[in-house]
Amino acid sequence: MTTPLSSPLRVGLLGAGRIGASHAAVLAHRVPTATLVAVADPRQGAAAVVAEPLGARAETSIDAVLAADDVDAVVVTASSTAHAELITAAAEAGKHVFSEKPAGMSLAEIDGARAATATAGVAFQVGFNRRFAREFVDARELIASGGLGEVRQLRSVTRDPGRGPADPDGVPPWTIFTQTLIHDFDTLNWLNPGARAVDVMATAGSLTAPGHPTLLDHATVVIRYDNGAQAVAEASFAAVYGYDVRGEVLGSEGMVSMGDGSQSSLRVSNASGRNATQAFSDTELLIDAYTGELVEFVSAVQERRAPSVTGDDAFAAFAIAQACIDSSISGARAAVAQEA
Amino acid sequence: MTTPLSSPLRVGLLGAGRIGASHAAVLAHRVPTATLVAVADPRQGAAAVVAEPLGARAETSIDAVLAADDVDAVVVTASSTAHAELITAAAEAGKHVFSEKPAGMSLAEIDGARAATATAGVAFQVGFNRRFAREFVDARELIASGGLGEVRQLRSVTRDPGRGPADPDGVPPWTIFTQTLIHDFDTLNWLNPGARAVDVMATAGSLTAPGHPTLLDHATVVIRYDNGAQAVAEASFAAVYGYDVRGEVLGSEGMVSMGDGSQSSLRVSNASGRNATQAFSDTELLIDAYTGELVEFVSAVQERRAPSVTGDDAFAAFAIAQACIDSSISGARAAVAQEA
Amino acid sequence: MTTPLSSPLRVGLLGAGRIGASHAAVLAHRVPTATLVAVADPRQGAAAVVAEPLGARAETSIDAVLAADDVDAVVVTASSTAHAELITAAAEAGKHVFSEKPAGMSLAEIDGARAATATAGVAFQVGFNRRFAREFVDARELIASGGLGEVRQLRSVTRDPGRGPADPDGVPPWTIFTQTLIHDFDTLNWLNPGARAVDVMATAGSLTAPGHPTLLDHATVVIRYDNGAQAVAEASFAAVYGYDVRGEVLGSEGMVSMGDGSQSSLRVSNASGRNATQAFSDTELLIDAYTGELVEFVSAVQERRAPSVTGDDAFAAFAIAQACIDSSISGARAAVAQEA
Amino acid sequence: MTTPLSSPLRVGLLGAGRIGASHAAVLAHRVPTATLVAVADPRQGAAAVVAEPLGARAETSIDAVLAADDVDAVVVTASSTAHAELITAAAEAGKHVFSEKPAGMSLAEIDGARAATATAGVAFQVGFNRRFAREFVDARELIASGGLGEVRQLRSVTRDPGRGPADPDGVPPWTIFTQTLIHDFDTLNWLNPGARAVDVMATAGSLTAPGHPTLLDHATVVIRYDNGAQAVAEASFAAVYGYDVRGEVLGSEGMVSMGDGSQSSLRVSNASGRNATQAFSDTELLIDAYTGELVEFVSAVQERRAPSVTGDDAFAAFAIAQACIDSSISGARAAVAQEA
Repeated sequence: MTTPLSSPLRVGLLGAGRIGASHAAVLAHRVPTATLVAVADPRQGAAAVVAEPLGARAETSIDAVLAADDVDAVVVTASSTAHAELITAAAEAGKHVFSEKPAGMSLAEIDGARAATATAGVAFQVGFNRRFAREFVDARELIASGGLGEVRQLRSVTRDPGRGPADPDGVPPWTIFTQTLIHDFDTLNWLNPGARAVDVMATAGSLTAPGHPTLLDHATVVIRYDNGAQAVAEASFAAVYGYDVRGEVLGSEGMVSMGDGSQSSLRVSNASGRNATQAFSDTELLIDAYTGELVEFVSAVQERRAPSVTGDDAFAAFAIAQACIDSSISGARAAVAQEA
Repeated sequence: MTTPLSSPLRVGLLGAGRIGASHAAVLAHRVPTATLVAVADPRQGAAAVVAEPLGARAETSIDAVLAADDVDAVVVTASSTAHAELITAAAEAGKHVFSEKPAGMSLAEIDGARAATATAGVAFQVGFNRRFAREFVDARELIASGGLGEVRQLRSVTRDPGRGPADPDGVPPWTIFTQTLIHDFDTLNWLNPGARAVDVMATAGSLTAPGHPTLLDHATVVIRYDNGAQAVAEASFAAVYGYDVRGEVLGSEGMVSMGDGSQSSLRVSNASGRNATQAFSDTELLIDAYTGELVEFVSAVQERRAPSVTGDDAFAAFAIAQACIDSSISGARAAVAQEA
Repeated sequence: MTTPLSSPLRVGLLGAGRIGASHAAVLAHRVPTATLVAVADPRQGAAAVVAEPLGARAETSIDAVLAADDVDAVVVTASSTAHAELITAAAEAGKHVFSEKPAGMSLAEIDGARAATATAGVAFQVGFNRRFAREFVDARELIASGGLGEVRQLRSVTRDPGRGPADPDGVPPWTIFTQTLIHDFDTLNWLNPGARAVDVMATAGSLTAPGHPTLLDHATVVIRYDNGAQAVAEASFAAVYGYDVRGEVLGSEGMVSMGDGSQSSLRVSNASGRNATQAFSDTELLIDAYTGELVEFVSAVQERRAPSVTGDDAFAAFAIAQACIDSSISGARAAVAQEA
Repeated sequence: MTTPLSSPLRVGLLGAGRIGASHAAVLAHRVPTATLVAVADPRQGAAAVVAEPLGARAETSIDAVLAADDVDAVVVTASSTAHAELITAAAEAGKHVFSEKPAGMSLAEIDGARAATATAGVAFQVGFNRRFAREFVDARELIASGGLGEVRQLRSVTRDPGRGPADPDGVPPWTIFTQTLIHDFDTLNWLNPGARAVDVMATAGSLTAPGHPTLLDHATVVIRYDNGAQAVAEASFAAVYGYDVRGEVLGSEGMVSMGDGSQSSLRVSNASGRNATQAFSDTELLIDAYTGELVEFVSAVQERRAPSVTGDDAFAAFAIAQACIDSSISGARAAVAQEA
């Protein structure tokens, strides 16, 4: 470990949407090792809404932030279609990069972004938040230490609250695979250490808007791994009961389960039953994980080491999402692309 | 073990109120080793409502049932004030007796009833249902086997659903001790094997009808045992969320807890939270325990052995209830009467 | 409802293996409306071990029980390969029939058995025990009443305890589908009222004995229903942590989950953590369901009505198992056979 | 709200023991609005162990920190017997004060410390951490909003892990009341808004070292409030299963419970059961609450307002502890001292 680069790390945030606002607040309030110096968003006034209450400057020019001398690293929270391009531009500007998932919209894009960060020698981390959720971290440690024996059956579930997308036409095709289940694909890869996904069988449909030509709002995916393990990933865009993130792994020596849908140990019992409170957004349910991933990114930069979540992980998770698209089109099992 | 007395055991039930109806149905539907042959209740028509759907005969004369040749044993479910007298009469008639708690309204009454059954050589069991609730049985086994080490702190809770007694004037004074908490007192004695209750400090009040002269609807009792253990017994007549029976024991080697208020593993998650269903009556929550205590009674009679819950247990639990009355009057700690 | 046929119903049991012994004990101890009169098993001495302690007569001839005048109904607990034949023979002998699952080893066998009982006019029930497990019953009622809205994603899990089959060669091919997951297939059909399974994709492997030519010890099945619902059925023969039966249904108005793996509300906390006790056999975990299914069978016979679980249910569940076999062979989705 | 005083707030920590080290790390790593500038401890080398890894300076002179220009506020984590004196000295030096509980060793001491901070016009907060534990906060909000109706029965439990004090002679008399249960007393006061504690009945004993003249390692306290509510506070110094903090409130409209002993939703199922992991120290179990209380302190100072936990709260909780001491000596109920 060498001397820290700068302390605190000076961060610029690119994209002031919902998740951008969340990351900005986390950086400002919960990550003492970082300082949010700038927020950029080309939409007039959007950056200011996020930046001003947090004492950062607002920019409409992303390039201005990439060129700024007082910015050591950027957090990419723009539209997914811009992720790969921004990662590449940031790397070329010598900035370390934390990007929301997915790192690109195709394996080629992700490969390009990854290569750009490698060439530039900057840190590159993708926002797979489950890797920083306490119960998932503990599960992974148990598995990696051999405490569960051989991994045999896995499950990862992500459900968004609500009754389905407000505007079914506004949801790009394959979103359920590339934006939502990509978390589960990375989680399953990570919870099955050393194994590679071989192929997938995807089942997806439009249940909130039956007959809609492109909306897929419920999906169930089975992944086969090269160690024989069978994994299920499930997603729904219409879980009226709240934001639901769960996992389970059966090994030869036992089972571990993560996530019970409740926010805390509070239970309220009244005439309608015994209630646990639930979260209704990812940023609420996973606030500690959202903090942890940024703490890890800042630490990695300051310690001049690679972050624990890599571009290879981004590639591997997207390869499963791509195979789900292929499987949806063909109706059959689809192979998962492997790195050379 | 000698030859069973009669098979199935022929049972008469004395008192066709709420708990009598429950015991009658349990005998008829869930205890293959017994047959309900008669139900007696002096109130015109009361016995028939319970007896007829179950194929038993209805009587208005309790004496007729006590004199019947086709009755081997009786279940006493009359008013508590009549328990001791009926136990004694049944014993003198040569009938085995299962009595709802309490076995009498004073230590003298209970002592008399106990003596009568001993003299007559009939089986005598009191309806302390927690002793047959699975989780309490398992806890007691763990404790008795030493798995929890020395017993140090205990808790037993009983809460009745609703908003308090419909008719506060209709609740006899001290009911919360002699009718409700007597379950908890027996449970605590039983979960602290070999120890004796030394004294109690009772705190009770009328919270649903503030200022009512005799109603005590909430009580918190601390019992000290001769092994140093500290026990709390809590009761409420106004738990709007359901019938609530719980226990906890801290020992030198660990803790055991019993009862989570839910009826099964069913959880319903919707916009209002994650709900567990709860029971709203003792006969619903504890149906398996109500079955188990009658199975035990019938088995004991048929195997010509003493039931596992004895008259001594009835005496010991009531001694704590009596001390609570004393403590409520004096405002100070009150000694628990000991057997000679 | 007409007059009951005989009370209690006189039952003969065919097959004195593990599950036969369990059903026999349940009939004798927990079903007051039935009497176990005979147990038949061609293996010398096998029937006596089960029958004698329960006061029933032991036979080596199944035909003798089918011909007995004092037998109103039979419970078929012989080897699965004999089920269809015994159901047919019992029906032809005028006996009502409760059969363990599956009702046959092919759709043709099940169809034949079902036809025989219909022709004979006897009651016919198949042992799908989940339908009598309290939390599953409550879930089904909630769903059937519309409380969950439209059914969209379902899951049913069955895991057997242990480290896998002691003798991998002794497990007939496809057992995981026809013997184990058939419970889950029926459960999923039942929890998705009015919907029909369209096709399946099965993923199965030998993970406890890698490379074994016929053993499938872990399976993950995705079923598509004609209402768009996506269901997952998972099974393992090597769950070292216990017998595990769980279910979950996501509807448009909420989610319901059943089964938490614990046997009761007992929790033991010590230096190793906070423990819930688990069951290690189906007959232990599901004892109340095993009782409930026999109570239902006896009630249906006595009330001269069809049992709530029918031959059509047996056919529908096996059609999914057959499709899983087809899918395993082809590696692709396989259609589920539909009734005409 | 006026302009923040200094940002981040510059904090000195007085006392580098176990809890001092925890507070120091929380300040450095989890409270972006504060900077830990100095740690003082008269014991040679003690301050350096805590200060150096966190980039703060170490002092052996507490007075030096109180006199330092670059210290805006102090956190008092010295021995309890020094708390009141240090609070007063800090106030006189114009420093804002956060003090670990109790604020003094007598009501007179606490009154003096409180008066000194009022006279000096500095912020003063006592470390009642439950007030910042999420489930307790949510419970309090529910109660304060009337969602539970009238408060009637309360319980608060604190258990320390281990087999009891390593050195029974080293535990000052009454520690269980003044150091441990004082958390529960404050919690109960806070969860019963607007009510005052009237009297207490304390039951305490030495169960890990029977016969020890001054060690009290288990205590059960009943508090009566002027709204009729009955509260139980329980503590143990020998909970081998972990650090255990729980609460429960029964109101006229329902019940709320807080704390289930588990650290997260992780459950590990293996041959020994289904395990939840537990914490073995307060600083581990309550890390988020320890952060929250310091965030609140810093915010209050910066916003020039009184902290949400006041000297009056410190006085009220200690008044109950004092009454417990009185009750232990007299064996009878003891009145709780009221503010004028």
